[in-house]
Amino acid sequence: MPIDIVVDAMGSDKAPEPEVRGAVLAARQYDVRVHLVGPEDKIRPLLRQALRGQRLPVFIVPASEWITMDDKAAQAVRAKRDSSMRVGLRMVREGLVSGSTHGPGKAAAFFTAGNTGAAMATAKMVLGMLGGVHRPALATIMPTSRGVPSLLLDVGANVDCDPDNLVQFAVMGNIYAKNVLHINTPRVGLLSIGEEDSKGNSLTRDTLPMLRALQGINFIGNVEGRDLFNGHSDVTVCDGFVGNVAIKSIEGCAHLMSQSLRESLKSTVTSQVGALLSRRAFADFKKRLDYSEYGGAPLLGVRGVCIVGHGSSNERAIMNGIRVAAEFAQAEVNSAIESTLQSA
Amino acid sequence: MPIDIVVDAMGSDKAPEPEVRGAVLAARQYDVRVHLVGPEDKIRPLLRQALRGQRLPVFIVPASEWITMDDKAAQAVRAKRDSSMRVGLRMVREGLVSGSTHGPGKAAAFFTAGNTGAAMATAKMVLGMLGGVHRPALATIMPTSRGVPSLLLDVGANVDCDPDNLVQFAVMGNIYAKNVLHINTPRVGLLSIGEEDSKGNSLTRDTLPMLRALQGINFIGNVEGRDLFNGHSDVTVCDGFVGNVAIKSIEGCAHLMSQSLRESLKSTVTSQVGALLSRRAFADFKKRLDYSEYGGAPLLGVRGVCIVGHGSSNERAIMNGIRVAAEFAQAEVNSAIESTLQSA
Repeated sequence: MPIDIVVDAMGSDKAPEPEVRGAVLAARQYDVRVHLVGPEDKIRPLLRQALRGQRLPVFIVPASEWITMDDKAAQAVRAKRDSSMRVGLRMVREGLVSGSTHGPGKAAAFFTAGNTGAAMATAKMVLGMLGGVHRPALATIMPTSRGVPSLLLDVGANVDCDPDNLVQFAVMGNIYAKNVLHINTPRVGLLSIGEEDSKGNSLTRDTLPMLRALQGINFIGNVEGRDLFNGHSDVTVCDGFVGNVAIKSIEGCAHLMSQSLRESLKSTVTSQVGALLSRRAFADFKKRLDYSEYGGAPLLGVRGVCIVGHGSSNERAIMNGIRVAAEFAQAEVNSAIESTLQSA
Repeated sequence: MPIDIVVDAMGSDKAPEPEVRGAVLAARQYDVRVHLVGPEDKIRPLLRQALRGQRLPVFIVPASEWITMDDKAAQAVRAKRDSSMRVGLRMVREGLVSGSTHGPGKAAAFFTAGNTGAAMATAKMVLGMLGGVHRPALATIMPTSRGVPSLLLDVGANVDCDPDNLVQFAVMGNIYAKNVLHINTPRVGLLSIGEEDSKGNSLTRDTLPMLRALQGINFIGNVEGRDLFNGHSDVTVCDGFVGNVAIKSIEGCAHLMSQSLRESLKSTVTSQVGALLSRRAFADFKKRLDYSEYGGAPLLGVRGVCIVGHGSSNERAIMNGIRVAAEFAQAEVNSAIESTLQSA
């Protein structure tokens, strides 16, 4: 049975082209039906072009508005009532809206490469929270030197968390790592500034004993920023302010390193030749570190599946986002989160 | 007049060799007298070797103990009363201790590539705080894509800061950027998770209006993690937990990228050739991003000059640390900090 995935066609920086092409790639490769939400006149010609006459289960769901990266999240969510995000998420909550070329029935998951703040706010509003969850958490996948991905959460859904929030993030991250990333007994760490229990701020020091006492997770104690990349922990928990600063700092560092390397390579004739010869290696290198391979950040704790991709997503990243959305939906993460946290 | 710089000879991961060689390089190149603190029997033969018969103002100050990277800071500071750090910092406070081959008189600055926590705790204890300063701040220099360095503070001296602390960090960072980094009107930013004033956690939202109201600094509002590298701000202020997580995440990312690139380059014969030819470019690239060029992190707010270098410092990094320590001491940063904060 194919699974229905809703894609915000107007999310990414170059929307809707990467979304349309990514949807076609996904429909060709996976057992999914993709519903592209957005203005039909923009999507239709691109879809016809991408399909090249092939019949694939990719449909258009009309939405007259969309939220841009420059929109202020809270304001845009209130003002744009027919935004592609809201229409798309309603399809996850209520079933496929009329006007779809596809029949009724709920969609399994929603993916957007759009404004992260707006996506989180809309998802909270439209889908609501899972029973027992106090706050949702945005989880991002980090590449590691071991070649296996690790999960960092929260990276921006909540600032000013309390210890209970961090404990819930640990539970949700642990379930996601097990059921979707297929890590048997995920090692769960608390992001801090030193390994000893005494290291950290008042939030982490209050949270640490609660995580040590928590049943059903393999808690390994404090971990540091550098552990995000060495695979020391599979799931790393932090408050959303700290997590967001960390991922944006990492992004800035990666960008500067790539840029510097390119400039350095250009600076001599010998190295121009070198760069040419190293091209294959660079492609391989880029792939190793490419976030787009991991398909985006799941928003955990809402009643439904919502994945947020990077604004710079290309068609491959969109395709991977659709795959991850389908895996999340099929792995029954939410029922496990609800049963664990409601009984806690 | 040469300036007296005290160097913890036992700080770095490979101590005392990089310290001894770096001290000799500095004494050869700058108008400094370097006092190496540590066990004479370990330092003497290395110094003789490094001097190669040349007469340079590098002296040995005996200390029987030293604090390792594995030592717990608070405990080691209490237990090791004759540590190279404590003896060295006493020379800044009280003048050169007996046993030195050099005469009396206070040293201008202290440099260590050792345990950061222990260095900060020892400096606070031995030197005390400048008048008007509530908390010291460790400031680190970040490379940027513009080629000019920028300052991030606090990166670990204080967790759980209040808005007053962050305002003081802004004042201290601003003075350091002006007087030592020679930036005319430094742009000062507050590290947050979005540019708008409404973005951030309760600490940054409370701090923002205070920084806007502050006289004598060029405050540009909230900045994000990625701005640490694009030169958008010259001085970026945050609490020590967030700053420490950020720099360690960056370190982890840079390490993973370098490692992946090396592996990718090795993976094909063509790219082995490419790598060989690109060697010059890589050396240039490494230098652009090399923290050791910047010579370490100043601890601002203590009554004296204390610079903390990276544990992996080589002789060149130690030499640069000594240069930065001398520049800091000569720039009269501390008197400016004291007069600004005491009158506030």
